[in-house]
Amino acid sequence: LAISSDMLVEGRHFLSTVNPAHLGHKALAVNLSDLAACGAQPKAFLLSLALPEVQAHWLAEFSKGLWALADLYQCDLIGGDTTRGPLNICITVMGEVPADQALLRSGAQVGDDIYVSGHLGDARLALEVFRGHLSVPQAVFEAARLRMEVPTPRVALGLALRGHAHAAADISDGLLGDLQHILKASGVGAEIQTAQVLSTMSCAKSAGLPTTALLPLCLSGGDDYELVFTAPEHKRSAIDAASEASATQVTRIGKITTSPHLSLFDGQGQPVANTFQSFDHFKTP
Amino acid sequence: LAISSDMLVEGRHFLSTVNPAHLGHKALAVNLSDLAACGAQPKAFLLSLALPEVQAHWLAEFSKGLWALADLYQCDLIGGDTTRGPLNICITVMGEVPADQALLRSGAQVGDDIYVSGHLGDARLALEVFRGHLSVPQAVFEAARLRMEVPTPRVALGLALRGHAHAAADISDGLLGDLQHILKASGVGAEIQTAQVLSTMSCAKSAGLPTTALLPLCLSGGDDYELVFTAPEHKRSAIDAASEASATQVTRIGKITTSPHLSLFDGQGQPVANTFQSFDHFKTP
Repeated sequence: LAISSDMLVEGRHFLSTVNPAHLGHKALAVNLSDLAACGAQPKAFLLSLALPEVQAHWLAEFSKGLWALADLYQCDLIGGDTTRGPLNICITVMGEVPADQALLRSGAQVGDDIYVSGHLGDARLALEVFRGHLSVPQAVFEAARLRMEVPTPRVALGLALRGHAHAAADISDGLLGDLQHILKASGVGAEIQTAQVLSTMSCAKSAGLPTTALLPLCLSGGDDYELVFTAPEHKRSAIDAASEASATQVTRIGKITTSPHLSLFDGQGQPVANTFQSFDHFKTP
Repeated sequence: LAISSDMLVEGRHFLSTVNPAHLGHKALAVNLSDLAACGAQPKAFLLSLALPEVQAHWLAEFSKGLWALADLYQCDLIGGDTTRGPLNICITVMGEVPADQALLRSGAQVGDDIYVSGHLGDARLALEVFRGHLSVPQAVFEAARLRMEVPTPRVALGLALRGHAHAAADISDGLLGDLQHILKASGVGAEIQTAQVLSTMSCAKSAGLPTTALLPLCLSGGDDYELVFTAPEHKRSAIDAASEASATQVTRIGKITTSPHLSLFDGQGQPVANTFQSFDHFKTP
């Protein structure tokens, strides 16, 4: 049994203006993403909800988004709580995985390839546009906003990686920060090719922003809900097969090293200073 | 596996001035109370916490109260989440019970005795004093306040009732409201002797309040975290033994009836009008 709990707070994890159907989707998606990182099959969830007031329309839309995703993964609502209070959504999700096949943070081995799934940086791009820090064409913003509000949990990929990946984590607080959790738990280091990481960007790539603006988005942007995982070199064709079976792009971005440092290198093999902070809930951005 | 999730919000479930150690205790206790109502043995819990700011002293005290209770029941913290936001505590607890021995709301049968554990009405007494609606001697208030802030989950009694009780629920929103959940799920009614219910009162009894003031406290007060349960007449000695084995007082307060109504009778056998509302989180008190 793999179990995870995530709490979403208005103004921190979502804006008050968010489409409630998107919010219902996201509240469950971020929890399913944790199961995906363990290679677990979703089974059931509990929903605890604090609401400032009962708004029938809001609740109907929120439920619609939540149920659509729950149905997709045949994940049953089995309990929870409802109370009055500042808007807060806490979901606890349960999934199943054979004990010897669970993907853990502690399994990375020296020489492993490091991969990420899907596309990094889009959610943070949308946030920075909302904040007025970046300006991009409307179509790019709309696409990035959907990536932020309606993330796809990589459950199918997580299941396909069972027996192949050595370690995995989901990227909620930024690639480097979440990769650090793997490195720390496994007692290893990593070398990351920033050009490979940049190549995963989707919406942002078409926004015409310079590399200096793009790098922080994909290295420490947060809210990506992609997987970062490691696997030995001889598993490269198995990883390709897992990517294909789950219809999920994966990109090789570096190697696990003996030295306990996390080092970045650009396309010319030159070191890149790691000034990319992981998201800290208790620092004002 | 029995699973329950409860969310506590400042200003609704606790006052901002509450002793943080008491709050840590209560946040877990209300969840353990749900397990007790199923006859489940606590195993593990997840804690999700939204905090307006990091206050080391507050967190240390909160943890102290939480851990003391968790240790008592050997219930392990296995995960959770921490974020910034208006104070909100969401705990999901898991316990184990053999499937055929789980106490359910749906098992009550016509002719069953109805029992409650411990003492009703103390928590609500303390709340009404806080609100300035009632006045009682200081010692009575202090005792009632401890009952409100540091409730004892009836885990031992729940375990002892396995195989004896037909149905059970924990009393969080008031006796009559939570008993109604049993009646509805079981398709039955009940007759309750209000004199018996009044006899369970502890602190409030010594406060010198008239019966008209005491009845609402114990019938619909809420926050009691006692168990209401039903068992057939031939199990009376088994229930006495369960009470003794768990060192928990139980009081017989009525009978399950065929008629789908919940009727109240006083000590002289006269009907008492049921004007006692269960706690509704979306009504302003």
